[in-house]
Amino acid sequence: MKIVIAPDSFKGSLSAKEAALAIAKGIQKAAPLSDTVLVPMADGGEGTVDSLISSTQGTKINVSVSGPLLDNVIAEYGVLGDNETCVIEMATASGLYLISEEQRNPWLTTTYGTGQLIRHALDHGYRKFILALGGSATNDGGSGMLQALGLALLDAEGQPVPHGALGLSKIRSIDAANWDARIEQSSFTIASDVVNPFIGPQGASYVFGPQKGATPEMLPELDEALRHWADIIEAHTSIAVHDLPSAGAAGGLGGAFQAFFPSTVQRGVEIVMDKSNLSQHLQEASLVFTGEGRTDAQTASGKAPMGIAQAAQKLGVPVFVLSGSIGPGVEALYDHGITSIHSIVNGPMSLQEAMERTEELLSQKAEQVMRTYLAAKV
Amino acid sequence: MKIVIAPDSFKGSLSAKEAALAIAKGIQKAAPLSDTVLVPMADGGEGTVDSLISSTQGTKINVSVSGPLLDNVIAEYGVLGDNETCVIEMATASGLYLISEEQRNPWLTTTYGTGQLIRHALDHGYRKFILALGGSATNDGGSGMLQALGLALLDAEGQPVPHGALGLSKIRSIDAANWDARIEQSSFTIASDVVNPFIGPQGASYVFGPQKGATPEMLPELDEALRHWADIIEAHTSIAVHDLPSAGAAGGLGGAFQAFFPSTVQRGVEIVMDKSNLSQHLQEASLVFTGEGRTDAQTASGKAPMGIAQAAQKLGVPVFVLSGSIGPGVEALYDHGITSIHSIVNGPMSLQEAMERTEELLSQKAEQVMRTYLAAKV
Repeated sequence: MKIVIAPDSFKGSLSAKEAALAIAKGIQKAAPLSDTVLVPMADGGEGTVDSLISSTQGTKINVSVSGPLLDNVIAEYGVLGDNETCVIEMATASGLYLISEEQRNPWLTTTYGTGQLIRHALDHGYRKFILALGGSATNDGGSGMLQALGLALLDAEGQPVPHGALGLSKIRSIDAANWDARIEQSSFTIASDVVNPFIGPQGASYVFGPQKGATPEMLPELDEALRHWADIIEAHTSIAVHDLPSAGAAGGLGGAFQAFFPSTVQRGVEIVMDKSNLSQHLQEASLVFTGEGRTDAQTASGKAPMGIAQAAQKLGVPVFVLSGSIGPGVEALYDHGITSIHSIVNGPMSLQEAMERTEELLSQKAEQVMRTYLAAKV
Repeated sequence: MKIVIAPDSFKGSLSAKEAALAIAKGIQKAAPLSDTVLVPMADGGEGTVDSLISSTQGTKINVSVSGPLLDNVIAEYGVLGDNETCVIEMATASGLYLISEEQRNPWLTTTYGTGQLIRHALDHGYRKFILALGGSATNDGGSGMLQALGLALLDAEGQPVPHGALGLSKIRSIDAANWDARIEQSSFTIASDVVNPFIGPQGASYVFGPQKGATPEMLPELDEALRHWADIIEAHTSIAVHDLPSAGAAGGLGGAFQAFFPSTVQRGVEIVMDKSNLSQHLQEASLVFTGEGRTDAQTASGKAPMGIAQAAQKLGVPVFVLSGSIGPGVEALYDHGITSIHSIVNGPMSLQEAMERTEELLSQKAEQVMRTYLAAKV
């Protein structure tokens, strides 16, 4: 019996890969002869590189780049098992987790390091890219990333503008003379679950600015800076990112990719499912185990277990969800291919205890669910 | 598909019957066409009457009797669906729960009310008895119960001795002239999971005295009182209860039954299983759901889920346990017929929350387990 194990991460406790290993351990206890296939998932945010590296047996490359505030950081990107496709999480170079809460300042933070990562991969011959946009510290409309790849953003005096959103309103012209020509020969798949536009009340600044350190007073000014930048982009590329879906992802980085790069935007979980050959594994599977930190009505909107369930449903494969906690409204998930949903906790306990014991509890629960399933097979 | 639902009570939250109803509700959601049979369990302690009444469609009779300290209490006993067998929990007349913590005093508490209940049933023509010995407030060696049924316990002056353990050491002779002759025409099944002897370090006084209010200084004196009483019993009946297994149950009430009554001792869960026709239901069952407040290594020693699992195992019927919390060592239960064990909690929560939400959580968990099982049936 082939069993696909495709959990998301249990945030704060286990990576998707660690979760898959824990589930496999429990299944093996209940069914030692089963053939488990580990396909750790990600939703296009944190963990995307690790999941794809793990499921395709790829490699990781470390690169020293400029962080969100231009300090040096060691970032990384993955090369998939096909040896052709790079997967880059923008957060590894330009993420919120790289700076302290006091340092958060969307006027200053830049995506420059993300551009350096792309350039490094281009230098090493790669032309296929997956870019995961979650967890950004920035609101610079992708300007830093573009600068790192040779695009000159010039002020009224023809001088380069400063880094960060601060420079955006000073931009008067773009000089593409040094723009990296290899980008046109490449393909970029943008992993984003964020569908917000570049500007406006649902745009990058208003919706995501506060978590990046924007005060309420800053929000209209940041939005106005992005609006000016969107006008410049449109003048240069003929592409209006202002209201474009997903253009507001990662502080407008999503818009920069869509305007300047040969790119398509896709839901994170779909990309991960696609690249990890999940559908091929499902063809041969009797059963799927997935999991996540919390399962509730939100799970229906594009989270990993949902994507897997939809794919499995087409093939008639049961899907068991193991979850840290279960919220209201999960009945709606049955229609989308989820067979049953089980909390991993084995009795009353605090969130802290559940998080500390996730690995053990996940194994135990997988074992119990597997034993229940097997009872019917006798 | 016939599904037997045979949980124990979830103490402090749901009676066994309420638990069975909650499980049935969840199963019906997952499998509306299934045929559920409710067989609420009990381990011979609290809930035994309710379970047997419920599963045999019997009735209850209320009787005013003397409580542990001779105050009036309204006690009850059950008459099973066969209209022949009475089931009596001694605690309903002589239980710890009837008196306050300050009132606990094993020198004074008496089983007199338990004897009154038996007499009431005899008066109404019943001759088959099940006696559940859990939860006693007494350490009187069953002397009060015997007095209520006509046995005169006399001191050196030929006067009746006082109630409670206090009277035991004063007993010099027994006068059986008024002993209820109907007892010899009856049969008594004693439900007891306690195997302790009448006296000694593992006897009634030392092991159970403290929870009934005995101070450390009292223990040797209480044990000595029971030893004297055991000598008297032996002289009168030729039965030595001193080291007899289960003679120490309910403060020695177990010894009194074994010496003076046509009786057999059986594990509580076995009696309940027997009288509720569980084995017949199991013959036709595809599946069994059971449950209890907590499942751990102790479950193996005679608790309800274990008894059910052992019976089901012989017939190859899978047994799913739904439990408030799961402790260490449950793997040992697999060998005894338990298929899988599931905590009802659906995420991190306090014990209080879990107890307040037991009914809802139990239903949800039954539904998920049933959905998991059914997935394999497709």
